[in-house]
Parts: sequence; structure tokens; C-alpha cells
Amino acid sequence: MAEKVTLKKLEEMGTGMVKQIDGGEGPTFETVLRTKSNTIYDEGIGCLRTGDKKELRKFLSMAQAKTFMQTVAIAAKTRKFVKEELHTSIRGLFYQLKFSLGEDLDEDLFSEQSESNGLIEDLEVALGIKREDLNLTTDRKGFVAGPMTILDRFGGEDTLIDLEKQGRSGWSIPSDVDNGMEIKRLDADYVLVVEKDALWQRLNEDKFWKKENCILVTPKGQSTRGTRRLLRKLADRKLPVYCLMDCDAWGWYIYWTIKTGSMNLAYLGRDFAVPEARFIGVTMSDIEEFDFLQKLTIKAKEVDIKRAEEMLGYPWINRHPEWVKELKMVLKTKKKIEQDALQGQRLTFVGEYINQKIKKKDWLP
Amino acid sequence: MAEKVTLKKLEEMGTGMVKQIDGGEGPTFETVLRTKSNTIYDEGIGCLRTGDKKELRKFLSMAQAKTFMQTVAIAAKTRKFVKEELHTSIRGLFYQLKFSLGEDLDEDLFSEQSESNGLIEDLEVALGIKREDLNLTTDRKGFVAGPMTILDRFGGEDTLIDLEKQGRSGWSIPSDVDNGMEIKRLDADYVLVVEKDALWQRLNEDKFWKKENCILVTPKGQSTRGTRRLLRKLADRKLPVYCLMDCDAWGWYIYWTIKTGSMNLAYLGRDFAVPEARFIGVTMSDIEEFDFLQKLTIKAKEVDIKRAEEMLGYPWINRHPEWVKELKMVLKTKKKIEQDALQGQRLTFVGEYINQKIKKKDWLP
Repeated sequence: MAEKVTLKKLEEMGTGMVKQIDGGEGPTFETVLRTKSNTIYDEGIGCLRTGDKKELRKFLSMAQAKTFMQTVAIAAKTRKFVKEELHTSIRGLFYQLKFSLGEDLDEDLFSEQSESNGLIEDLEVALGIKREDLNLTTDRKGFVAGPMTILDRFGGEDTLIDLEKQGRSGWSIPSDVDNGMEIKRLDADYVLVVEKDALWQRLNEDKFWKKENCILVTPKGQSTRGTRRLLRKLADRKLPVYCLMDCDAWGWYIYWTIKTGSMNLAYLGRDFAVPEARFIGVTMSDIEEFDFLQKLTIKAKEVDIKRAEEMLGYPWINRHPEWVKELKMVLKTKKKIEQDALQGQRLTFVGEYINQKIKKKDWLP
Repeated sequence: MAEKVTLKKLEEMGTGMVKQIDGGEGPTFETVLRTKSNTIYDEGIGCLRTGDKKELRKFLSMAQAKTFMQTVAIAAKTRKFVKEELHTSIRGLFYQLKFSLGEDLDEDLFSEQSESNGLIEDLEVALGIKREDLNLTTDRKGFVAGPMTILDRFGGEDTLIDLEKQGRSGWSIPSDVDNGMEIKRLDADYVLVVEKDALWQRLNEDKFWKKENCILVTPKGQSTRGTRRLLRKLADRKLPVYCLMDCDAWGWYIYWTIKTGSMNLAYLGRDFAVPEARFIGVTMSDIEEFDFLQKLTIKAKEVDIKRAEEMLGYPWINRHPEWVKELKMVLKTKKKIEQDALQGQRLTFVGEYINQKIKKKDWLP
């Protein structure tokens, strides 16, 4: 069904342009301005999104002709992928375009490493679809285990994946958790997100997800699109989402990207954000509660200090006194704490820490 | 069983030192010198390994006392982990040591990012064991699918993992594929290693491993220890190992690390190397065979040129005329080809390319 909608949208875009040409006009398409000035924090839904400012892309413009043509070529190629029911990466797309269009392509625009890609974003925003719907795969990274079963329709086969039976590896969160994928069973009480794969493995070994009946997720650092979508889907099932991150620049950034989205991916909006997410740790305040952590803080780096200062400037963060207190403590002490430190005294302490935090509702918004 | 051997070795190390102290000597332990001068290419087994030069580490030495003490502390901590049957990362180990020893620890020595870690390497080499045997997990990254079933004994449970039933995600290769893990079924004709996850996903969607009855592996870039061990185990089952990499600095490095090991991890020796591995592509010579690739080469970067020059200097590479020809072609044309380019004309061409290469035995050693 999603495929049919995507094809219809792509075809409407094409026929619209043909009509413009037949009518003697130069072809155009409308997209949304994705600049800082058109990025807003939406109080109502609690996440970053692009505002209402539109942009008209014109073929008959010296500055835009080349990228316009490339965007149209991407639309044509991805329409073919969707019809063929085949997927590729944006690097695969790059070579398909290069084969058709020749040398005149900026390869850096089609790198897995670049978080955003103007040409494809234009298409996503103009058509109101996701790149995953265009059969473009993105980098995958996260893992999950717990009382959940997934039906994966892929490559002409249906597979039931029981996330309680994945052993030490867990299930790798794919780049697309929407198309051809269904949650068939979900018996959990909550979702726990831990920043690092190493800690996820620690908790998986303790069978934490079994004892506590939760879905145990690690984004393995910054969340991929697939991980953010999965968390959104789990939150839509009314499961609380608790996050355990490092108390440092990266940990906060990873948390706030899950919760509100990030500035440069704001155009994704609520579909990729979990405003309901809660930050259970680790925090500078933990030092008061857990003595042993005092000797396990480490020196904050330049980047941590700078990030803490930046965050104090964001209105969607500085309106929470808990976060202001936390960030100011980092600036004052110039210390940070990693989630790995929870293992310092006893390897199995991590689970006890999480249980106490959730039970006492001791979290930051 | 592996656990018992590890415990015995750790205990012998400890009792040996106690004996030295009781005898009025300062404690010592012997390790192997891991310098470039003591790294040799072993013609017989076809991989890099450390030579015979030994090094005696002494506690009663101003220069060595601190690291000696830390190494002993690591031995004591990991002995505890093995006895408790619990695993942690080297970052988790860092905090356990920090809790016991206090501030005097270089945290950079215990970073997941640092490929090698002198203190733990000392212990591995001195005792003739792997860090995985010390219940230390390492970074994991690769994926695998195909006609193979794994028995995973983990966290007190046995799980059978059928690598034909993992859908779009495949099975994530864990950091330790030896302890508590057994290959229960292996019905494949060969192993195919593709450098990039994106291409692995492309081939997985085409069910390439099913059609060709092979084990489809991606290290997802440079191979982790777990991926190297898995490939070694598959090669031990007499399966040919074919590698499909980018024709550039990284692709070559990834291939040669799989085949012969790398300079800084040479101490791992044959257990982590697959001298039997063959390089099926992509190559500069492919341009002659596959016309469409001509327009899909891209400009080689500085690093590619430098690496090609370096490789021409390694005796274990420059004794192969096929590699010399290939590398010289890169230096001459200053071009490179990525494996993703194989999709330029048709997404499903990758499989046809691989089949032709294997059928014609068109590979580099």
C-alpha cells in the first residue's frame, strides 16, 4: 500500500511537470525551506519541525537547473526501484545516476557518512514521503531484544523474528522498519534505551529484558533513522521510553535527538521523534545517591563544556529546571560520568540502578 | 573447558609471582616483543606473526612498575569475570580498575576506539590466550546469512540460530564466536565476503546466499576480531573464501587484514588470519571485461595512491605479479572503483558479476 502511494506521488510530480512544459512554462516543484530560520520547536507535539516557509525550485534558473535535473533523475530512478521491488543505498543510487547522467555529479552528496542529503531531502519534503519509501536503504546500527515478535516480509519471503530468541547478538534494527514489517506480538511494560552496545550486551547477558519484561534497545551511539522510527512505533503502543546515556556531550545529544529530533533533520518531524522519552541517567546528581560513582567521574572535554553551554541556550531544554541544574553542574565541576562507570563496583549493578531510577520516577524530562 | 584453561593460566601467573616474591626476587613475567622489527611474514602459514624475541617485564623497574601493577590488576579482575561467568567491555574493565586502583589510569588505554591495547595484549601474549577468553567483549560490526545454524550458549540459555531465517537483518557476528558457540550445521559451498553492509543487503534481498548456496558475510568495513575468527573457522571447514572489496586503499587493507592479518595485530597470528582468502574484485582490470564500469571509475584520493605505493613495498604482496599489475594501474590512472559501481547499470548485476568471477577463477591471490 505504501508502495502504491509512493508511486502515485512520484507520477503526479512527473505529470505535473509535463503539464507545465506543455503549457509553455518551465517545470517547477515546491519544497519546504530547511534552514535554521525555518526550524521551529513545536510546543504542541514537543519536537523540532520545519515551519511553513516554502521554496519553489525552478528548472529555468541558472543556479538551480543542475540540481533540479538531478532531483528529477532521482525521482525517475527510485520510481524504477519501487516498481522492481528492489532496494539500494544512496551510494548505489549515485552510480545509477552516474551511469545515466555521466560525470557531472558531486559524489560527496551521496555518501553514507553525510547525515543529510539535499537532493533526496527535497524529494522527501516535496512529496511528503520518507526515503525508505523510495526503496533507499540507510545506514543501520542499533540492536534490540525482548518480548516482541516481528514479521519481516523481505525478498519474497515472510520471516517471524522472535526477539526473545536472538542469543547474545540480539536483532539488528534494519534501516526500514515500516515497509514490509509488522509488530506481531508486543508484551513489554516499557522500553529501555542504552546508549552503548557494550552496556546493551551487559544487560542482555543478565537477561534484564526478561526479568523486567522490557524491550532493550541500543542505538549504538547516535540513533539511525531506523532506530528512531522503531522507538516512535513502540511509543505509539503507549510504552514508556526510558533512556540511559552517558552524562556528556554525546549522551545528551543522542537523548535529545531521540526526544525532539535534531536541527538538521528537523524536517522529519514527529515521525522520527519520541517527545515522551525520559532520561533516567546517568546524571551528575547520581554522585549524591551512589557514593562509589564519586571516584569514577572523569574530566569533561572541551566539547562537553561547549555542548552544555549550547544546550542551556535552547528554549526547549532550558525551560526544564532539572536540565538547567544538571548542565550547570557539569560547567561548574568540569566533570562527566559515563554509563560504563555503573559497572565499576559490580558488573551486575547496572540493572539495579535502572530499576531504582524507574521505581522512584527519578528521571529528567 | 576454555574457561578452565584460562583460569589455570591466570592462576599459574599469579602463583609464579608469589613464588618469586617468597624467594626474595621481584616479580616478572615474560611476553613477546610486539614491534615492527619483531613482526615477520611467515611463508609457511601465509600470515603476519610476531617473531621469537621475548621481553621480560619487571615490577622492580622505575619505568615498568606502574604498567606491571596494572597488568596484574587486569589479570585479577578478568579472573573474577571468568569465575562469575560475566562479560564486560574494556571500558567496563577500566572502571573496575579505576574503582580499585584510583585515579592513576590512562583512560585512553581502555577506549573501544583504540585498535590495540598494550596492557591486555601483554596478558594475551604472555598467557597464550585471547582477550575473549578473559570475558572481555570487543566491538562487533559484521553480519552473516546463509545455510548455517549456530548454537549460542549465553546467559544461561541455549539458542539455535538458523542463519537462513534472519530476514533483512541477518545475524550480527558477536565479539566472541568461540566460547559458548558452536556451528551445528554448515551446508554451504563457499564463503563470500563483501566489504560494505549496503552491498550485503543488496545481495541478501536477491537471496544470493540461497541461490548460490554460500555463506554471505560483510565485515562492514574493517573486520572485527569476531568476524576474523568466524572466517578462520569457516576456512577450517575447507570452504573457499572469496572477497569482494572496493578497489581502493580501504578495500585492499580490509582484504589483506583478513588474509594475512595487520602489522599492529600481528601477534594474533594464524587464529585471526585466512591465508586461503581470494580477491575476486573489484579490480582495475574489470574495466576491460565490463564496459559499463569505464564511466563509473572515480578519482583516487591521496590516501589510495599512498597505500598502493606502500603495498608495492610489502614482500608478501609484491611477490604476486597480479597485485603488482593492479596496483601499478591505480598509480598510473589515478582512478579507483567502488563495489557499489557494480549496481550502476542494473541493481541485480552484482550477483552475476560474482558468479562469473568465481566460475572463471578470475581472482587475485
